[in-house]
Amino acid sequence: MSRPLNDHDAIRTQLMDAAEDMVRARGAINLSLSEVAAACGMSQSSFYRYFASKEAFFEAIAGRWFEELNQIMEEVVASDLPPREKLFQFFARRVAVKRARFEADPNLFRANMDLGEEHWEVIRGYVDLADHYMAVVLGEAMSEGYFEGYDLDHIIAITNLMVQPFCNPFVMMDMMRTATPDNLRIVINTLFDGLGVKQAAAADKANVTALRAIS
Amino acid sequence: MSRPLNDHDAIRTQLMDAAEDMVRARGAINLSLSEVAAACGMSQSSFYRYFASKEAFFEAIAGRWFEELNQIMEEVVASDLPPREKLFQFFARRVAVKRARFEADPNLFRANMDLGEEHWEVIRGYVDLADHYMAVVLGEAMSEGYFEGYDLDHIIAITNLMVQPFCNPFVMMDMMRTATPDNLRIVINTLFDGLGVKQAAAADKANVTALRAIS
Repeated sequence: MSRPLNDHDAIRTQLMDAAEDMVRARGAINLSLSEVAAACGMSQSSFYRYFASKEAFFEAIAGRWFEELNQIMEEVVASDLPPREKLFQFFARRVAVKRARFEADPNLFRANMDLGEEHWEVIRGYVDLADHYMAVVLGEAMSEGYFEGYDLDHIIAITNLMVQPFCNPFVMMDMMRTATPDNLRIVINTLFDGLGVKQAAAADKANVTALRAIS
Repeated sequence: MSRPLNDHDAIRTQLMDAAEDMVRARGAINLSLSEVAAACGMSQSSFYRYFASKEAFFEAIAGRWFEELNQIMEEVVASDLPPREKLFQFFARRVAVKRARFEADPNLFRANMDLGEEHWEVIRGYVDLADHYMAVVLGEAMSEGYFEGYDLDHIIAITNLMVQPFCNPFVMMDMMRTATPDNLRIVINTLFDGLGVKQAAAADKANVTALRAIS
């Protein structure tokens, strides 16, 4: 608690840090704003000078959690990489950040996930934003001829079904051993090479073999 | 509680039913054997005439939970279906059973999942058995030329990564809307058509196009 108290943002940060300490120590359930305020030597009414509501406080905490993750998504989407590599990095770089956070402090990580479940209305916007960025990347892949016969919403749903261990933190925690970057690359390649290929491609492969045999 | 008490198996069933009622009402934490016994008008020492230990009791409960699921796996593996259809049914038929159980009683389902997490040493054997049956199906697919360049253990790991919403009950509960049989079929097709295809197949497709253009 040695941060200077001379400006609004520093005090906001101090209050969020105090909440984090409490969540780390006691879990996410029933986090009390008056206790958070008291931990910073402040009354609950003073607290509201820094955050207009409990909701605004959790939004700020979520904003801090997602800041780096959103920046990664923006960078990947804005890059000149081919869509297959973009989709790989879209998941790989964020899961690496989440994994590092988990390994740095597993209890805090789990407690933050519980906090997110408790305030799902705050988290939902970030999940929708991730789907939006993913849609941009998958749309680029479609325009290059991938995923023939599927519309974008369906491709988003299939992708989310196939990559849970690389984006859902609860599944990630259960599958640390196999949810590696190498296996993510294989899953992404399988998606790009396999979705929309169907029986036509098998027939094509047979054709290639037949054509080669007679050439 | 109208079951006849005239034989060993009926009393075992009655004790398991009593435990289920308690889990349904109060959750899985700290289920007490003496309370289960009391609910059946029995002392704890009498309880041990029917189950040798607390461990044996949970093993019997798990056995009842997994009986139908294991039977499905045995049937699918023993069938004459092609491996792609076998793998689809391997997941589709079991997730349909789990989903029906969830929909019949969401609280009991969740409490049973928590009970399983608490007694993971009992559940592990069933998870390993599922991996064993899946290995048989995936091995048949390999012998038909699928998944070129991957060894069986790696294919099992990739498959498990890609199908979490269709086998992990916690993920299933979160993704009820998109984890449909149709989408499972698409994921399984994507796996069969995409894993091990890599750049060679893309080149083959280009060849087909080129050969068609000149023919």
